[in-house]
Amino acid sequence: MALKSYNVVSLIRKKRDGEVLSPDEITFLINEYSKDRLPDYQMSAFLMAAFLKQLNGDEASALTKAMLHSGKVLDLSDVPGIKVDKHSTGGVGDKLSLILAPIVASYDVPVPMISGRGLGHTGGTLDKLESIPGFTVDISLERYRQILTKCRMVMAGQTEEIAPADKRLYALRDVTATVESIPLIAGSIMSKKLAEGIDALVLDVKFGSGAFMKKHEDAQKLAETLVTIGEDFGKETIAYLTNMNQPLGYKIGNWLEVEESIEALQGEGPDDVMEVTHTLAGTMIMLGGKAETVEEGIEKSKKAVSNGQAFEKWLELTEEQGGDTSVLKNLGSYPKAQHQFTVEASKTGYLTGIDAYKIGVASLELGAGRQSKEDDVDPVVGIELKYKTGAKLKKGETLAVGFTNNKKAIETAIDVLKDAFFINKRISDQLSMVTHRVDRVGIHEISNKS
Amino acid sequence: MALKSYNVVSLIRKKRDGEVLSPDEITFLINEYSKDRLPDYQMSAFLMAAFLKQLNGDEASALTKAMLHSGKVLDLSDVPGIKVDKHSTGGVGDKLSLILAPIVASYDVPVPMISGRGLGHTGGTLDKLESIPGFTVDISLERYRQILTKCRMVMAGQTEEIAPADKRLYALRDVTATVESIPLIAGSIMSKKLAEGIDALVLDVKFGSGAFMKKHEDAQKLAETLVTIGEDFGKETIAYLTNMNQPLGYKIGNWLEVEESIEALQGEGPDDVMEVTHTLAGTMIMLGGKAETVEEGIEKSKKAVSNGQAFEKWLELTEEQGGDTSVLKNLGSYPKAQHQFTVEASKTGYLTGIDAYKIGVASLELGAGRQSKEDDVDPVVGIELKYKTGAKLKKGETLAVGFTNNKKAIETAIDVLKDAFFINKRISDQLSMVTHRVDRVGIHEISNKS
Repeated sequence: MALKSYNVVSLIRKKRDGEVLSPDEITFLINEYSKDRLPDYQMSAFLMAAFLKQLNGDEASALTKAMLHSGKVLDLSDVPGIKVDKHSTGGVGDKLSLILAPIVASYDVPVPMISGRGLGHTGGTLDKLESIPGFTVDISLERYRQILTKCRMVMAGQTEEIAPADKRLYALRDVTATVESIPLIAGSIMSKKLAEGIDALVLDVKFGSGAFMKKHEDAQKLAETLVTIGEDFGKETIAYLTNMNQPLGYKIGNWLEVEESIEALQGEGPDDVMEVTHTLAGTMIMLGGKAETVEEGIEKSKKAVSNGQAFEKWLELTEEQGGDTSVLKNLGSYPKAQHQFTVEASKTGYLTGIDAYKIGVASLELGAGRQSKEDDVDPVVGIELKYKTGAKLKKGETLAVGFTNNKKAIETAIDVLKDAFFINKRISDQLSMVTHRVDRVGIHEISNKS
Repeated sequence: MALKSYNVVSLIRKKRDGEVLSPDEITFLINEYSKDRLPDYQMSAFLMAAFLKQLNGDEASALTKAMLHSGKVLDLSDVPGIKVDKHSTGGVGDKLSLILAPIVASYDVPVPMISGRGLGHTGGTLDKLESIPGFTVDISLERYRQILTKCRMVMAGQTEEIAPADKRLYALRDVTATVESIPLIAGSIMSKKLAEGIDALVLDVKFGSGAFMKKHEDAQKLAETLVTIGEDFGKETIAYLTNMNQPLGYKIGNWLEVEESIEALQGEGPDDVMEVTHTLAGTMIMLGGKAETVEEGIEKSKKAVSNGQAFEKWLELTEEQGGDTSVLKNLGSYPKAQHQFTVEASKTGYLTGIDAYKIGVASLELGAGRQSKEDDVDPVVGIELKYKTGAKLKKGETLAVGFTNNKKAIETAIDVLKDAFFINKRISDQLSMVTHRVDRVGIHEISNKS
């Protein structure tokens, strides 16, 4: 198709002056950038103008579309079923993909999941999967389709072919202080998810001290933008706002999180993990056409755990992707870290908060994450919390156990961890995990019960 | 000196969030950029943030200082006298430098003037000077100092050694829609002027349809910023706000403007040109210590024209810089353009406005200016206005005469010119040419008399 041509400086000026760019204008900018005909210095000026003057919903959709079409868009129309995926904005201890994907797939709803690696204080799903001996996420597109058809789920790594413009733009935003823009974040997330060939999407947008979005209102704005974009592309999209004022579950670290997800599939999951898992999985089951309502979906999700069908599905997928299922069946057989240490309560009182960011940083220090892209991660290291917020503690009680193979890292980790727990005389109100649902109709408060 | 080091992304973020950067932080950014250690894409993100979140006076001063010290700063302390220069923000038909510099120098006040070439619709002083046969503006620093000492004035072109960081920054701003920022403009102007080795500075900040600043309030803001920066550097700085709602004088084009400036030096200058010239020159004479007050300076300026001493000074300078004075003494001997054409009044009425921008563009079309840096200018072409605003016209009367050596350009020029004149039944109020003075004390209204 013949594309219109524009003067780049005029487009930057237009956004600088707070005007709305047309879809053609946004497409022109992204296409020119993809084709190396628009230099980084013009794109970064545009990004800063877009950051400060905002992009509206139509502009965010156009941006998403242009980034999506900068690479390969998978066509999974020959795979039977309504394909549903989940995306989370990321949080410390978030192993939900590993639990909900087999739950949903066990009801014959295909879950084509493409995930990223961890960078910074949050772990990546791929790193967690690779802690299972033999599990491979580097699979061809043909194999991806094959596994999805057979197992009704697949877990793969992102390839260079998916939304390359997003990859370049993100790298530029990272060095020009233009990351934290809601429409730019939304465009980045959705261009990658839409490239997977999904029919519907559930989003877990986290808020709180441990989340990218500290404020509930920012998370709500992001959720609304994501839903608008998804619906613009004709994909039913439902977002949940979930609380990340402490890490999810008790275990943080690659294998530790696989372990906790297996426990969850065996009916032993922590309350907070299960509340969010069942909400998201139930919604996915509903979107996949296997339940009339979210409530019915949630009941089905719980049943898939209690009757073992989700765990069976997970073993099937693991085997299909080359993983060793014996460690999953016998968690105690997995290698242990050489060193462990504990962190104790500094006083008696109620545990009113756990700083998820600090827990993530400590886990990173112990070897569970990457400081830069090239770093290797150590699967066995991490942190196990002994209490969640709301617990009544006595001074000296063990709050957390740390595991590492790098003895020198212990001191630094303890330094970070000792400021990560807030203990007070009075118990504070506990927020429910899932506070709101955002769909094409609007925002709905979720009644507080887990 | 050891400079502090900063994280560039943090500095961009700080400005993005509307915070004020310290002088050290601004200096760091400009130094790193000058040394090619900070890429264009980060600088352009910073510039857009600075454009939208503004720089305050201290930040503008720090920017100016860093750009100033990116190159050579002339030391003229061995040249006797208080060195005073003038800078104008540029306007169509602005030949004031050529008139006021010899007036001021004729009172033994040294005027070290470094000028630029024209680009776009306004002509450059250097192009005008070079229309005088033999006149050279490419002179060494030694020769510059020699001429200034001998003639008390010198007119030279900008060298690569003056504020190179400003040159690079300006080029980047030009392609990233970050030109029209008052503190960035002020920093650019002042870094170049302060590098000349001046002791005091007079600024002609133009407002109106033909000026860079369309609005009086923007011109006032720019004037205030320029004065603040000048005073921060210990240089007495006085700015005037002058009206550019029509071209200055009657003649537009390189030689045509030299011609009009010679007529002015011979006592035959147009009223608007002389009003601004005497105000600026009088102020320069005062700043140079040769008058107690601006009013006394203005009287001296008028006297230097009426007694011929300014014209004599101009002939002396022209000869010193290699120019042919015979054409200046006999203006009719200069070569003529091959083609001329006229533009007539479309109706009877009062001439209420002349669009200076359109006049500039038409002159450019005829060959008087450059569309890009590499273009040559034709010295003999241009436009001569027959009336200024306020005149009573009859339909069909000649409004302007155009001169060109490019017959094909005539049609385009006429197309532009026919919309450049506004004729109305009723006469509108005429603004005085100089409306305000801005100095370290504040802003002062200038009473309307010329």
